[in-house]
Amino acid sequence: MADKHSCGVGLIGAGVVGGGVAGLLLSRRELLARRTGIDIELLAVADVDAARAAALGVPEKKILADYRLLFDNPEIKVVVELIGGVGVAANAILDAIEAGRHVVTANKALLAKRGREIFAKADKKGVIVAFEAAVAGGIPLILALRDGLVANRMQSLLGIVNGTCNYILSQMAASGRPFAECLAEAQRLGFAEADPSADIDGLDSGHKLALLSALAFETWIDFPSLHIEGIRDIRDEDIRITGNLGYTLKLLGVIRPEQPPEIIAKGSGGGSGRLFLSVHPALLRRGDPLAGVSGSLNAVKTEGDAVMESMFCGRGAGRYPTASAVVSDIALAASAAVFGGRGPRWSPPEENAYSLAPIADYRTRYYLRFTVLDAPGVLGRITTVLGRNQVSIAAAHQFEGDHPDGAASVCIFSHVAREGDILASLAEIGGMDFLRGKPALIRIEE
Amino acid sequence: MADKHSCGVGLIGAGVVGGGVAGLLLSRRELLARRTGIDIELLAVADVDAARAAALGVPEKKILADYRLLFDNPEIKVVVELIGGVGVAANAILDAIEAGRHVVTANKALLAKRGREIFAKADKKGVIVAFEAAVAGGIPLILALRDGLVANRMQSLLGIVNGTCNYILSQMAASGRPFAECLAEAQRLGFAEADPSADIDGLDSGHKLALLSALAFETWIDFPSLHIEGIRDIRDEDIRITGNLGYTLKLLGVIRPEQPPEIIAKGSGGGSGRLFLSVHPALLRRGDPLAGVSGSLNAVKTEGDAVMESMFCGRGAGRYPTASAVVSDIALAASAAVFGGRGPRWSPPEENAYSLAPIADYRTRYYLRFTVLDAPGVLGRITTVLGRNQVSIAAAHQFEGDHPDGAASVCIFSHVAREGDILASLAEIGGMDFLRGKPALIRIEE
Repeated sequence: MADKHSCGVGLIGAGVVGGGVAGLLLSRRELLARRTGIDIELLAVADVDAARAAALGVPEKKILADYRLLFDNPEIKVVVELIGGVGVAANAILDAIEAGRHVVTANKALLAKRGREIFAKADKKGVIVAFEAAVAGGIPLILALRDGLVANRMQSLLGIVNGTCNYILSQMAASGRPFAECLAEAQRLGFAEADPSADIDGLDSGHKLALLSALAFETWIDFPSLHIEGIRDIRDEDIRITGNLGYTLKLLGVIRPEQPPEIIAKGSGGGSGRLFLSVHPALLRRGDPLAGVSGSLNAVKTEGDAVMESMFCGRGAGRYPTASAVVSDIALAASAAVFGGRGPRWSPPEENAYSLAPIADYRTRYYLRFTVLDAPGVLGRITTVLGRNQVSIAAAHQFEGDHPDGAASVCIFSHVAREGDILASLAEIGGMDFLRGKPALIRIEE
Repeated sequence: MADKHSCGVGLIGAGVVGGGVAGLLLSRRELLARRTGIDIELLAVADVDAARAAALGVPEKKILADYRLLFDNPEIKVVVELIGGVGVAANAILDAIEAGRHVVTANKALLAKRGREIFAKADKKGVIVAFEAAVAGGIPLILALRDGLVANRMQSLLGIVNGTCNYILSQMAASGRPFAECLAEAQRLGFAEADPSADIDGLDSGHKLALLSALAFETWIDFPSLHIEGIRDIRDEDIRITGNLGYTLKLLGVIRPEQPPEIIAKGSGGGSGRLFLSVHPALLRRGDPLAGVSGSLNAVKTEGDAVMESMFCGRGAGRYPTASAVVSDIALAASAAVFGGRGPRWSPPEENAYSLAPIADYRTRYYLRFTVLDAPGVLGRITTVLGRNQVSIAAAHQFEGDHPDGAASVCIFSHVAREGDILASLAEIGGMDFLRGKPALIRIEE
């Protein structure tokens, strides 16, 4: 059977992930043929740096300096874009679609920003744009959300989708060291890039969250309107204080309908209206399965109205874990090319199921930390302001500080409150004379 | 688009899961049409109890007393078998295949025992037998292993795949109560059946493990040759002692090649030879992600040579979680029926990648507990026997017993040892005069 069906693959970009994909395609052609019924052959690799492609073991005659030459070979039915970025990569994908090729990409930034245009063009040309590797690396999450949970209306999604941030926060918690030191260590060990801003400022998580929103909540957001906070300002003091009280800090992508669909066993209301979408550092109770996901791992926890809670955990980055996801898309696209059917086809929703809610209307529990001069009445003044703004306090702690100027830390754990009321309180307290530095605000997700 | 393509579904069995499937198909026809491009319509429900089908809200004219009547309707392209058991269900599935219908089933017992015959017949007739709901309920695990991790050679699989056992063991750990009490409670709360033996004796986990072996390790086993231990003999004393030392006890399905494939980044050796397949109670260190999966949840942890570790967690049973998986198969089968392509097609391996290894050759760490008369030299006699059998001891504890006859508990944690050597030691110690009752042997999985 394997020798009867074949599908050629063209790879654009021979970098870290591209190298992994080439390695998998070259080394396990037989295994893939046995499992898919198709002889999947890497026919060409395009990279501006021919030496880099050659170093992967790709025969010289298969190396192209210009990706457009791929389209001259009619045997190439699946084109894999692994350049990254939103420049050449966009042209490569649009050109491949125009040339009638199925496309596999890991490019979350591009899809989050120009996905509508790309998927619309693919629909028109009747080809697939598959992107399993764009979110949560090796975890087959796109497959799970698109096909595995197709019968569900989703109630919530919480995800640790950036391994760099998770590594840094795990190190901060384990070692007690400040952010800058843990970032430097992560850079030294290859868990963070030389310019780490796309990771630590939450942009990368935001790109992934935008795709997850479209997939799982049928809501395509205009990327710049997404609320994004990174981890650059996270203080080791807050990790220590909350850690001692049973919390773990994670950078989360959060998607929550204001009125989630009810569990189907109990009814069928909700599931429309407004959607909160946000990337932010959040405290999780230590028993939460996401709290135990440490180091560079990724994990996504979902609730569906039929399936209830699910969690998917694994490597979110790295050469071979990411290549594993890319090759799974190649196999599905090759199957569609050879045997027909829809394959891993997906289009953004024509109409959004939800509109975007402003973060000021978010309702959850909050952790607030104020560094204050240890003067009489400070705790009372803070709690009075919070009370006046409808923020009810679940727990309050004042810690003798190790601050050089003798300042103390006042930590408040609120009951569920509206974020706008929290912000109004902080604005008011911000003007008070006892305050030293900017207060910390960290959401508690449950 | 939705009105242009349609696919009829016939359901056999209107019990708990069947009711959930009918509920989902009837209530979210529009949502499924939007997501799949197909109007998926429940055209008939066959059940010997017509009233049970009617109670699901199925119109009377769609209710059939005999499943064979389903095949008279050419609009029914997908047949869903949810009777369970290996009698009528087998005939229903074989008849549906014979009639050229795609089949969706949750019947792990049947597939584990007669899967070869069923899949072979489906291949011959060119139809699909999809079984997402047969393993780990609502978790889209089959999809992940078949398609998502298609590029991987698997290194290990450990799974909590029976919610009843996990519930009972979680309750034993939380409450300190003995097995019988926790079983009775589970029965009262609906987490265990009146006749719980298929669950607590590990058979149900075994059925699932057989399917996972075929899917993830390309090794189809003759079901009766599978090593299966249940949880009936687990003593609360062992949960307490090991719990105090940082371990959690779970009933696991375990699949491990004797020589696992190397991580691809490091080589490509291994991955053939013998395979250990076993269902047994096992101790996990508390930091292991599987250790945190409590109550009736299921979870499967895998290691692949490209993707490395992954974990999939969620509800393994229950009306709507299971129906969620069934409907995902229905959607994929409907897509194959309408748009062509291979859909969720899968066949057992033609040749097994591994042969089955006898459990006597298993190598892991072991926990042993001996209840002994508190006489001089007992600990020495036990450890001498172990040493003579090449079992090296990592830790040994003797606890003053709360046994009525003044007996004490001697607990041994071995280093990695060969199971045959452990068993030889137990046989030898079994004849010694100080021993009271049967020693406990629990594997430690890391």
